[in-house]
Amino acid sequence: MSQSLKDSVNKGVLELKPYEPGKPIEETQKEVGLDNIIKLASNENPLGMSPKALKAISSATDLNRYPDGNATQFKEKVASEYNLKPSMVTVGNGSNDIIEFIAKCFLSSADTAIFSQHGFAIYPLAIKASGAEPIKVEAKNWGHDLDGIADSVKENTKAIFLATPNNPTGTVLSVIELTTFLKKIPSNIIVLVDQAYFEYIEDEQYKVPFELINEFSNLVISRSFSKAHGLAAFRLGFSISSEEIADFLNRVRQPFNANSLALIAGVEALNDKKHISESVDINKKGLALAEEFFEKLGFDFIKSYGNFISFDSKMDSDKSFKYFLSKGIILRSLKVYEMPNHLRVSIGTENEMQQFFSTLEDYAKFLSK
Amino acid sequence: MSQSLKDSVNKGVLELKPYEPGKPIEETQKEVGLDNIIKLASNENPLGMSPKALKAISSATDLNRYPDGNATQFKEKVASEYNLKPSMVTVGNGSNDIIEFIAKCFLSSADTAIFSQHGFAIYPLAIKASGAEPIKVEAKNWGHDLDGIADSVKENTKAIFLATPNNPTGTVLSVIELTTFLKKIPSNIIVLVDQAYFEYIEDEQYKVPFELINEFSNLVISRSFSKAHGLAAFRLGFSISSEEIADFLNRVRQPFNANSLALIAGVEALNDKKHISESVDINKKGLALAEEFFEKLGFDFIKSYGNFISFDSKMDSDKSFKYFLSKGIILRSLKVYEMPNHLRVSIGTENEMQQFFSTLEDYAKFLSK
Repeated sequence: MSQSLKDSVNKGVLELKPYEPGKPIEETQKEVGLDNIIKLASNENPLGMSPKALKAISSATDLNRYPDGNATQFKEKVASEYNLKPSMVTVGNGSNDIIEFIAKCFLSSADTAIFSQHGFAIYPLAIKASGAEPIKVEAKNWGHDLDGIADSVKENTKAIFLATPNNPTGTVLSVIELTTFLKKIPSNIIVLVDQAYFEYIEDEQYKVPFELINEFSNLVISRSFSKAHGLAAFRLGFSISSEEIADFLNRVRQPFNANSLALIAGVEALNDKKHISESVDINKKGLALAEEFFEKLGFDFIKSYGNFISFDSKMDSDKSFKYFLSKGIILRSLKVYEMPNHLRVSIGTENEMQQFFSTLEDYAKFLSK
Repeated sequence: MSQSLKDSVNKGVLELKPYEPGKPIEETQKEVGLDNIIKLASNENPLGMSPKALKAISSATDLNRYPDGNATQFKEKVASEYNLKPSMVTVGNGSNDIIEFIAKCFLSSADTAIFSQHGFAIYPLAIKASGAEPIKVEAKNWGHDLDGIADSVKENTKAIFLATPNNPTGTVLSVIELTTFLKKIPSNIIVLVDQAYFEYIEDEQYKVPFELINEFSNLVISRSFSKAHGLAAFRLGFSISSEEIADFLNRVRQPFNANSLALIAGVEALNDKKHISESVDINKKGLALAEEFFEKLGFDFIKSYGNFISFDSKMDSDKSFKYFLSKGIILRSLKVYEMPNHLRVSIGTENEMQQFFSTLEDYAKFLSK
């Protein structure tokens, strides 16, 4: 590239390193030469996609036609499901899209935006790409330090990115904590509460209700279909906000950002209560067993409310990651999350978890050698 | 919305009016109370999607898994198809995504970017959303005035958006014209040549070869799967550029922007030469007949190289649009394209075109009353 063209690239983009996705199974098979690889790396639903959604997309027609740019049926379904107005819904190509819309609408090079240490990696990427300056607030007990975040707000702060449960730590915020926090935040600052893992929360005090946006006009709450609904391949998420914020987010949304099959699958996934409850159930059992094994084998772990759990592998996580990989298990190293020894394991099926536990036992022996 | 929150919205976004998609068939059925509605409004493939692609997605599994964020198989297919390196390919959620990547990488509030009068509506939207100032260059015979565009380049111009064939005018640029133009453009300015309608071009002199990027390091060429391949519902497009530009575009790309089914369908659509040639063939016949009818009935039209044709409806196009709508035909009014009396008709099946021609005859009589 000619130097002059590189000079044309926006400064925030020049500094960006793209997000590194979990290793695909196929690639890993080639790499380690094993047939039986299990992927516990991307917090996907081990039960598969919603069967109702699968049935719906199997009979989809007119795939030569553009999606409905207004996603009318999907928005109406979300609205009726949660007793909201369709005009409060913004549809995303995954909830990742919602993060981008907020950055695009509200952030520019004169601004700052806040995220938490150990917060989802996409937040600082989206902030930097917009040209704004990211402010990272130190975590507290692996979770968001809401007081610290409130204290870090500057004159030019335009957005705050929170997640509950937070990926990759699995920590949650209670509705009371969040409400207290929101009261302290000036109403010209957008607060995103990212609830990609919402369905896995069982304790009521951690379930952030959409109604909170009636109290806080600067609040945006996002949800994903990639986790409990099992639709990661399709890319679908949405946010709920005031109609006014939704109007702004929709201005920067690409007119056909969500594809037709995702919109069809999303409607049916919301109807598929059985699949959701089975998914939540298997996750609960897997999490409990994981906690038990970590305790038994002496590994520190972070109590998780999501469909994954992170633990201290007691060595450089790039190395421990490779250990598990060599045994056919893809985990996630949390080095980029400033957790140099931590690995994250997604909760899989019973069989997958047994394979993980058995490998964990071997790993514990390997460490004690 | 509190005034203070509105003040936080980026200026370019405040001024945006979202892109208006073609009217969906279902919505129109309700509106005009007709069962038999034909949609010739969004330049979709009237033959449907590639049958090979349909077969491939029907047996897709693991839809609970995230797409391959690197789109390895798709990029390798594109690369082998066109004799390029996979690292020169950037995958888009539709080629619309590529336009956004360019804006996000190269444009900020200090910059200007150039597009042509009657150019695709998304260009000025993407420019404004980035905070940059759009420069509109007057069209010449409905097409891009390349000399005018070259003369409009300013010190702070960072990008130029061209399309050939151009939507909604159908005009083309020859490779010679384009080469002459590119020689005049400073190499620090990105030039996008949007070729969403490439497959419909039959005359070699208008087929812009990917090899041109070897000569012009600032050139990006984009293609779409929404037109000749019939995959509009899936959202898939890509660009070819230098590896260096592709690296920058990929930094602002969402890690899972293209969904799994789109990536699978895209590979097979490229293999489906039969479907492409049938699609091109039916389009050619439809275009020729349309020209004939427009001439016979005395409507001025713009010679088109795409899968659509625009004509002067001899009255305010919001009104003529409604006339056709009331007869069950959805066309596109080109008012937002500064073509206040023009309508655009997408080339449909033989039956659809007959229905259009017959309504056009009625419309001509209606006008002469």
